[in-house]
Amino acid sequence: MQQRSEETRTHILEASLKRFANHGYNAASIDQICADAGVSKGAFYHHFPSKQAIFLELLKGWLETIDAGFEAVHQPTVPETLMQMTGTLPAIFASADDRLPMFLEFWLQASRDEKIWEATIAPYHHYQEYFANLIQQGIYEGSFAPVDLQSAAQMLVSMAVGLLLQGLLDPNGAEWEKVGKDSMQVILKGLEA
Amino acid sequence: MQQRSEETRTHILEASLKRFANHGYNAASIDQICADAGVSKGAFYHHFPSKQAIFLELLKGWLETIDAGFEAVHQPTVPETLMQMTGTLPAIFASADDRLPMFLEFWLQASRDEKIWEATIAPYHHYQEYFANLIQQGIYEGSFAPVDLQSAAQMLVSMAVGLLLQGLLDPNGAEWEKVGKDSMQVILKGLEA
Repeated sequence: MQQRSEETRTHILEASLKRFANHGYNAASIDQICADAGVSKGAFYHHFPSKQAIFLELLKGWLETIDAGFEAVHQPTVPETLMQMTGTLPAIFASADDRLPMFLEFWLQASRDEKIWEATIAPYHHYQEYFANLIQQGIYEGSFAPVDLQSAAQMLVSMAVGLLLQGLLDPNGAEWEKVGKDSMQVILKGLEA
Repeated sequence: MQQRSEETRTHILEASLKRFANHGYNAASIDQICADAGVSKGAFYHHFPSKQAIFLELLKGWLETIDAGFEAVHQPTVPETLMQMTGTLPAIFASADDRLPMFLEFWLQASRDEKIWEATIAPYHHYQEYFANLIQQGIYEGSFAPVDLQSAAQMLVSMAVGLLLQGLLDPNGAEWEKVGKDSMQVILKGLEA
């Protein structure tokens, strides 16, 4: 029973992702998602209170794969850690690929709706915090010169957001993995003690 | 007569920008834009073949203000030039402010429509080229170490896109001008000869 319920949940999420990607978040209706997933509306509402809740769950799932990639990195120094994190870019690109239209629509909603805005902005603050801690650690270990932690962390987040957006919009416009690695080299040299 | 026609054109562009920002590009109809601008549909089609043409004109106008800001920068070396360009960020932020939802909707269209995609991607290639030339010049003058020009230029473009997107989504989330300047300092040190 438990397993059956998990499967239903997964079907709903998969059907939603596909529908959001192909037809847009706004245009997707719960009726259509239920039809695609082969579940009743009752089953849908048993798992999710709203279409928005599904988006937030898809976003959470995507961020968890990024975090898992980051946590698998074990290197002796912070510069080596950051460099190896850049190596997870292709996997992040691949996992974000069919989510771009959905992200864009959600940013769009975020610019008009306070609650969605908060959910959209939270991951940035999470990564901002994460990189600030990492840079602080790099300063402690003597790899980096003292810097404004917030600015330096924001720089890494902005770089990642910019690379991701451009890489998704224009996959053949550059060798994105190389750009990511080369950029990180420049930044690491710039942060050097 | 010429002046009257110019005014009509400006009214249409202003009304479109306002409607796109408040109601979305997709939801905006030419009928509504004409009503807002106080012009006839005939007058509209005299100036613009389509709603898409208006978007492209608004995008062009916005990019021209950025370029004008860049061209006003005259500094003896490339690092100083790049640093002063970062000073134009607040003006770029201000001029992009009411355009964010429109940009997002257009990126969204771009992910589904080849022609819009090309128009959306062209400015990136333009700035990519622009910064590659500037970095090349920085290497010639002895400011920068030799680097992969395409990667370094792409890094600057990605950084700018990321900063702009985050700054527009979350204006109070950071001191964006300071983040921009601090980031440029790190990048300049990273590129140093």
